Amino acid sequence: MEIAIYIYNGVTMLDAIGPYEILRNLKGVNIKFVAKEKGEIIADSQMVHLNAKYDIEEVNKADVLLIPGSSISFIKEMKDEKVLQWIRDIDATTQKTVSVCTGSLILAATGLLKDKKATSHWKPINLLAELGALPTRERIVEEGKYITSAGVSSGIDMALLLAKQLKGEKDAKAAQLVVEYDPKPMFNSGNYLSAEPEIIQYAKKQLERNARIIIP
Amino acid sequence: MEIAIYIYNGVTMLDAIGPYEILRNLKGVNIKFVAKEKGEIIADSQMVHLNAKYDIEEVNKADVLLIPGSSISFIKEMKDEKVLQWIRDIDATTQKTVSVCTGSLILAATGLLKDKKATSHWKPINLLAELGALPTRERIVEEGKYITSAGVSSGIDMALLLAKQLKGEKDAKAAQLVVEYDPKPMFNSGNYLSAEPEIIQYAKKQLERNARIIIP
Repeated sequence: MEIAIYIYNGVTMLDAIGPYEILRNLKGVNIKFVAKEKGEIIADSQMVHLNAKYDIEEVNKADVLLIPGSSISFIKEMKDEKVLQWIRDIDATTQKTVSVCTGSLILAATGLLKDKKATSHWKPINLLAELGALPTRERIVEEGKYITSAGVSSGIDMALLLAKQLKGEKDAKAAQLVVEYDPKPMFNSGNYLSAEPEIIQYAKKQLERNARIIIP
Repeated sequence: MEIAIYIYNGVTMLDAIGPYEILRNLKGVNIKFVAKEKGEIIADSQMVHLNAKYDIEEVNKADVLLIPGSSISFIKEMKDEKVLQWIRDIDATTQKTVSVCTGSLILAATGLLKDKKATSHWKPINLLAELGALPTRERIVEEGKYITSAGVSSGIDMALLLAKQLKGEKDAKAAQLVVEYDPKPMFNSGNYLSAEPEIIQYAKKQLERNARIIIP
């Protein structure tokens, strides 16, 4: 089973690595990190760098396509017709096409989410409507073969659902145990709908700082 | 505030990227991914590659040092006296020295955890005793300035504690909201102490497969 994770300059690392770490622990799964061009990919923080071993010319099918999000550079990807066409082409071959965070905005820009319910990071989620999708403020939204998940860390939960669908419950549960995913956050501050207003305002400022970083 | 994350061939990506993604969203934090030698670092799965921009010669102090784990190559790191001495030297400058997963075995190999309680991934945790530490099967264990966390995904929870200690509760909560860390795993299978025996056996097989991959 081949899983393609699309990476690009400005990507949010945990969007990609959270699901990867669950899925790579499934038997018989191979994961390719695919970029428009091979070579170095810089994360949105500009503090960490991936090395893409595959470019989009080399990968023309996948059982699963995953589109991670980014702090700001999803906007550039949404306008890159070559990338969007590659996503459409791969999607035509997938069992599942999934996104994390603002990855759903890139996916929606292809037209593939038209009239479908979808989620995204809590801050830009309403942009989905402008792209023809139906913004749905839930952690994981499934519409046929499309699964979109909310901000950053939600990709881990989405990957467990995907693992169950691809390989069955036993394999998904074992992958969860391998990565000891028994989350115990010390605060209850991860959900936009229940976070304190002061924390929401403060988080928005951080997101604005993130969005000011210039990605090459 | 400077955070150094030590990376090495065979590293488990989520061990490093989980905490990174929380900590990089704190104001005024800079994170350096540091390897013994600059250049490409291959993950334990051999499916994803980082590019280390700093080597250990260049980084001689940090406010926080984080040691991530690995499927098997922690054993090599535990025997590398140059790496162990670098960890001891950086530790002499830190406010906090922390580990995720089998990173605690590398940390214990330096002697810094002698007679201290520590945790690790559920499978190799008892090796801590051979290294002079006191194995403690909890998700997060704090002993003075040392914080060790359990397998892979536990580093996200540990990073929230660290964020609170470094920057205060408001900043930690905002970082949690930025990454939408409101975990909702669909299975309750991430804890060794409560997982079904059949799942534990199956997960052990996966861990054995992981450990058979040859890391350069």
